[in-house]
Amino acid sequence: MYGLMMDTPLLIWSLIEHAKQNHPDTQIVTRGTEGEIRRYTYSDLHRRSMQCANALRSLGLQPSDRIATLAWNTDRHLELYFGVSGSGLILHTINPRLHPEQIAWITNHAEDQILCFDLTFLPLIEAIAPHCKTIKHYILMTDAAHMPSASKVPNLLCYETLIQAASDQFDWPILEERTAATLCYTSGTTGNPKGVLYSHRSTLLHTYAICMPDTLNISARDCILPVVPMFHVNAWGLPYAAALTGCKLVLPGPGLDGKSLYELFEQEQVTLSAGVPTVWLGLLAYVKQNQLKFSTMHRTVIGGSSVPPAMLKTFEIDYGVQVLHAWGMTEMSPLGTSCTLKHKHAALDRETQLAIKCKQGRAVYGVQMRIVDDEGQTLPWDGQRSGHLQVKGPWIVREYFKEEGGNPLLPDGWFPTGDVATIDADGYMQITDRSKDVIKSGGEWISSIDLENLAMSHPSVQMAACIAVPHPKWDERPLLIVMQRSGETVSKEQLLAHFQGKIAKWWMPDDIVFVDTIPLGATGKILKTKLREQFADYKLPETFNAR
Amino acid sequence: MYGLMMDTPLLIWSLIEHAKQNHPDTQIVTRGTEGEIRRYTYSDLHRRSMQCANALRSLGLQPSDRIATLAWNTDRHLELYFGVSGSGLILHTINPRLHPEQIAWITNHAEDQILCFDLTFLPLIEAIAPHCKTIKHYILMTDAAHMPSASKVPNLLCYETLIQAASDQFDWPILEERTAATLCYTSGTTGNPKGVLYSHRSTLLHTYAICMPDTLNISARDCILPVVPMFHVNAWGLPYAAALTGCKLVLPGPGLDGKSLYELFEQEQVTLSAGVPTVWLGLLAYVKQNQLKFSTMHRTVIGGSSVPPAMLKTFEIDYGVQVLHAWGMTEMSPLGTSCTLKHKHAALDRETQLAIKCKQGRAVYGVQMRIVDDEGQTLPWDGQRSGHLQVKGPWIVREYFKEEGGNPLLPDGWFPTGDVATIDADGYMQITDRSKDVIKSGGEWISSIDLENLAMSHPSVQMAACIAVPHPKWDERPLLIVMQRSGETVSKEQLLAHFQGKIAKWWMPDDIVFVDTIPLGATGKILKTKLREQFADYKLPETFNAR
Repeated sequence: MYGLMMDTPLLIWSLIEHAKQNHPDTQIVTRGTEGEIRRYTYSDLHRRSMQCANALRSLGLQPSDRIATLAWNTDRHLELYFGVSGSGLILHTINPRLHPEQIAWITNHAEDQILCFDLTFLPLIEAIAPHCKTIKHYILMTDAAHMPSASKVPNLLCYETLIQAASDQFDWPILEERTAATLCYTSGTTGNPKGVLYSHRSTLLHTYAICMPDTLNISARDCILPVVPMFHVNAWGLPYAAALTGCKLVLPGPGLDGKSLYELFEQEQVTLSAGVPTVWLGLLAYVKQNQLKFSTMHRTVIGGSSVPPAMLKTFEIDYGVQVLHAWGMTEMSPLGTSCTLKHKHAALDRETQLAIKCKQGRAVYGVQMRIVDDEGQTLPWDGQRSGHLQVKGPWIVREYFKEEGGNPLLPDGWFPTGDVATIDADGYMQITDRSKDVIKSGGEWISSIDLENLAMSHPSVQMAACIAVPHPKWDERPLLIVMQRSGETVSKEQLLAHFQGKIAKWWMPDDIVFVDTIPLGATGKILKTKLREQFADYKLPETFNAR
Repeated sequence: MYGLMMDTPLLIWSLIEHAKQNHPDTQIVTRGTEGEIRRYTYSDLHRRSMQCANALRSLGLQPSDRIATLAWNTDRHLELYFGVSGSGLILHTINPRLHPEQIAWITNHAEDQILCFDLTFLPLIEAIAPHCKTIKHYILMTDAAHMPSASKVPNLLCYETLIQAASDQFDWPILEERTAATLCYTSGTTGNPKGVLYSHRSTLLHTYAICMPDTLNISARDCILPVVPMFHVNAWGLPYAAALTGCKLVLPGPGLDGKSLYELFEQEQVTLSAGVPTVWLGLLAYVKQNQLKFSTMHRTVIGGSSVPPAMLKTFEIDYGVQVLHAWGMTEMSPLGTSCTLKHKHAALDRETQLAIKCKQGRAVYGVQMRIVDDEGQTLPWDGQRSGHLQVKGPWIVREYFKEEGGNPLLPDGWFPTGDVATIDADGYMQITDRSKDVIKSGGEWISSIDLENLAMSHPSVQMAACIAVPHPKWDERPLLIVMQRSGETVSKEQLLAHFQGKIAKWWMPDDIVFVDTIPLGATGKILKTKLREQFADYKLPETFNAR
């Protein structure tokens, strides 16, 4: 027997309709590609999203056609979020930090019909346009005044000209809620990039989930600034969450350096921000150097890779900014866990609370987790045993676009995340490694992340990466690669002394190498594949082998 | 084109599975029917819900069979919430305050197969059992020691005996998410009671919605005590929200007097409570009389009927308890709006903020609202024009069980709430009346709620109700019925003087009648139908006609 409630599908356009009705005058602030500040409201966003939908429709598209973007976090990108998905097309956000060849490959694989891009990327588009076989129109996300007088890009249109010519009345279609809404490719380190095709349903359930008090806790009293790019898993869902809650939204454009961000935080009274650890390194350095404080920002979401405990403490203790440690992946829309305390933790001292917050946190309701050993046996949640982390839920990938890479799921329907983790009895998960980064020494696992965090807790260390190098006796042993803070020097011996007593003796790195720079990927994560190539023939000294 | 995310249905059992995995040791505290305190955890609740599901299955039921309850807010009732709906049966909660004949009628209409009830209701069940045609088993929600030695109730089973004999392993069924989960009847003032049949989907979407920071803001750091009964629209969804968030849960059983509630609030460190205004009158009287304070309760949800502004101020200013004014109805699962402030309101003074909080608040995302005039024309959101409030959304009724009362929706699919309201430009809705209570004087509307709130702001007034009485010239005029605080006296003239200058002159009540008691319905609301009957032949004095 079925329930007798209204059959209202969960659709992305309902978010912007809700915001326009209930928060018409709440501000959306953008720092554009030329550094200028633009300011409008949800009411304007609603109107322009409808104009955007009409403008696209006039270009002769079919339902579910892919519309690609190569763009920063801006108002215009936001209009495409609602105008494209809302009208039944699929928004395909592309990471501009990928290799141009890879970008062209992705647009061909996705069969993108239109590519919208920021002025910043004009040279890139000119270079790849000849290789993009399916794109019929290129739309430059600027106004007529900023259009290039001549360009090698074929069929180049001006976004503002299109919008202004379009009607601001649009009947949003009543779609089946499982209809595809957005497409993001993972920049896999092996094989071709794989597309994750989110539905309206998965997006809306994820949006509810991320706004919850135990997740990112977003309300109409917040002003949020997503540093995480809108080309990276839909900026972790924050643009949708903003419309759902009617919070003030600040979009930083391309200015992601410490100074630019800090100025926006202060000027716009930002209460909540979100980004990867590497972004916060720059911000904290700027704030420290200039002896500044955050006057309104009291929470920041850090995800994408583990938060170094030292960074967590700096934010929480030195600056009074609460860190929301979160974990997820493109295949998970992206949020899987977030780290907030429970009722029973209220009485704990600050140190103990911070130790909990260093974990990636508890499963957001909707996400099921388990850890298994190499044989697939489920492991207990004791905070000790680490195993391969697997997940299930309504915003987790079932298969990749065009079945690229084959069936990603295990026979019993769970998705293997590729992470290695512990989960404690209270449900707090902690990533100890990527499955492929784990260092297998003498049949046991050494966590590369633990060693990196320990290295980064040394005041002279800016960034650290730990990789496995082959070892004749122990199979693999850890090599620590360190980038020092500018002006600082620490010796190998000093750093090893810093490790002493803090880890099991056999976890001690067999060697430390100092480098000028550590390679980062397109989403700001350390590229261990690059490091492994670079140090493929590295010979470990005998002396450092502790076992 | 469909998205490629996992097809995970939204099912009620996933809530208790989540709580058991992530919050195994979080407490659930119950004050039982004999006043005793019982204490267990989500892990126990999970195990016993499975035993409950097995016990019911052993009684030979079909999927979607209705299991009725006549019970207080207790752990056992909670086990039925998850054990019944989780296993694919339908939980039918009945309001024990209804007339016994009506209860019997409802069980027959619902074709209940089993009726579970608390010891308190044994005499009631003995009286109605002969009239309940479909019930095969009666289950007394107690242990063997408390079972009556003899009873007129046929096939009487003991809940604890059943549970303890049942296996604690149960495979929750993977249902279609639109499968019916729970059934509540509205105690309509006209016609037969009508059943609202909620689905797993509608329940889970509603649960996400009520936990949001702008709704009830429930997290794992809360300890909630729902005073609102579990037989009244599933206690506004709080039992589900508790499992979703893993907050501590305190269930007060039958002890809803001020003293019993206050003691539980303090002993269990309750942070959030929820109930109708009449319950809070009793609590506030007790707290005032004994010069007490709330040491942990910092928020309370008040709904079911409008919060009198005087009560709101008492809670907020005298006791530092934040009031969450909410509005909804059985047909809406029940939540439609909640009143929280926005970013732009932070700088307002306390008085202005409190004035906003007297409104019923903004639509919870998922609920669409509109107001229309008598001709069905949509009215603007200007905070001035009042109209019939209509709603739409995935947790709003489409039709009643067995199509009782015909199609409840308007031709364009909106549900008429029967409320009259204004909505302001920021989306804040304020109920000004029930459509049937509005006083139509000289072609214009007088808000009975405004007059009642004004009366209740007088220190001598305990409760007030305003009804329309026929008038030869103006069609209808307001009659105010007042119940004074014990020991207080206020004259008709003094009370009218209190109105002077605070309302339009033609809104002034034509007369005031003092009564010893005002009739309340089964959910604690004033029964205006009764009052209208009582004062049907009331002759208004000429002198008070202000127009």
